[in-house]
Amino acid sequence: MTLTDIERFLDQLGDEARAIAMQYFRTRIDVETKPDATPVTTADRAIEQRMRELIASRFPSHVLVGEEGGGRVADGVSWIIDPIDGTKSFVTGLPLFGTLVAMVENRRPVCGMIEVPAMSERWIGGVGHASRNGEPCTVSACAHLRDARLCSTDPRMFSGEAERAFARIAREVRVTRFGTDCYGYAMLASGHVDLIVEDGLQIHDVMAIVPVIQGAGGIVTTWAGEPVDESFEGNIIAAATRSLHEEASRWLGRLHV
Amino acid sequence: MTLTDIERFLDQLGDEARAIAMQYFRTRIDVETKPDATPVTTADRAIEQRMRELIASRFPSHVLVGEEGGGRVADGVSWIIDPIDGTKSFVTGLPLFGTLVAMVENRRPVCGMIEVPAMSERWIGGVGHASRNGEPCTVSACAHLRDARLCSTDPRMFSGEAERAFARIAREVRVTRFGTDCYGYAMLASGHVDLIVEDGLQIHDVMAIVPVIQGAGGIVTTWAGEPVDESFEGNIIAAATRSLHEEASRWLGRLHV
Repeated sequence: MTLTDIERFLDQLGDEARAIAMQYFRTRIDVETKPDATPVTTADRAIEQRMRELIASRFPSHVLVGEEGGGRVADGVSWIIDPIDGTKSFVTGLPLFGTLVAMVENRRPVCGMIEVPAMSERWIGGVGHASRNGEPCTVSACAHLRDARLCSTDPRMFSGEAERAFARIAREVRVTRFGTDCYGYAMLASGHVDLIVEDGLQIHDVMAIVPVIQGAGGIVTTWAGEPVDESFEGNIIAAATRSLHEEASRWLGRLHV
Repeated sequence: MTLTDIERFLDQLGDEARAIAMQYFRTRIDVETKPDATPVTTADRAIEQRMRELIASRFPSHVLVGEEGGGRVADGVSWIIDPIDGTKSFVTGLPLFGTLVAMVENRRPVCGMIEVPAMSERWIGGVGHASRNGEPCTVSACAHLRDARLCSTDPRMFSGEAERAFARIAREVRVTRFGTDCYGYAMLASGHVDLIVEDGLQIHDVMAIVPVIQGAGGIVTTWAGEPVDESFEGNIIAAATRSLHEEASRWLGRLHV
């Protein structure tokens, strides 16, 4: 099983996720609220179920982990599924939602897919390369906060010291844009966004985006500078260049949150 | 000159705006910062210039008002142009930006267009009707905050009492989504969003959306319940139904901000 095989398989998963998502998108679908106060729909469950079926059928020995269906990463190979990242976008008719699937080996993400059904766009990242709709993509050369385009999903995800650190960074940069979810990372991989700072994330939100960002030449770590692997929980900083990552980390890295 | 003629003319403006926007979109265009700290690009200026040329050529006696080029609404007929609403989206590769053009007669908006180039979507609203890509569109039947999908461009647009009022509304609703600019109003007109609460807006941000929302059956006023006309500056509440508008207004209407 080569990396190319994995990427072809991710393309197949992306096609299936897109078909299901677009069946439900803008159909005034019911929105349930989960115990953690985040929304979920029939479409989330249907996509995760289909991803699980396809992966289990192709790789019966691999471990499956999903936002809705649960599971835990184990030794060997695991797959992490976020059926709809950006469910709030999905239920308000906005196209900025995506299906995230990551292949994790020895607890580190190796390949990842960001499939964005309503935009007919798909990013796939593996070791040392990343693509958008099959064409190579690369991050920008932005080296300084003062020139940076910053994205974050919701400023209300920060509190206390983290809130103040984020506010300082947002004052330094050229543009700050909220409401991006996985699409902000995709735009970073394609060079249209330079920096993403987020908190309160879970493993299924981030594992697929790590190989995409890294494959496109970017840097992604926790605020403390640690790698993003299966022990991840909480905060993340993704940057186009090492210099920009360092500038942003000066505000964030010393926080123990 | 019938309303149908005006709408056909808006379609022509939309086609031209789309062509210019897509020439510049995702080209790593330079971003300047205006004195009011908002971003502007060559694309903003090129679209406004073209809209002004087309309107002046067709209606030489009408008054032109634009975000970038200035001007003031006068008696008779005026046209209000926002060449790129959502410039932050535009410069970060996100598709949620749009060109807004409104025709204002006796200082009230009569017809409006929300053209969204990167989504190939266009909303046009006139007296008593609204359309998306030529097909009629209508707001949702959502009558209560507890069921509502709320959009707003940036929570940092609120301060003091307004910030507290917005936070209370955001706690009541089912889903809150940021970063929407004009696209949130378009989604309200198409029934995918139920409520929008914003502050700090200017006349060019809102004049085109009023006929679209009203034409789709929605309600749009200032927080104090006043009509949105050429004297507008500041805050707005747009809702799918009168009942939802009243519930949200209970929190906002008594604020004198």
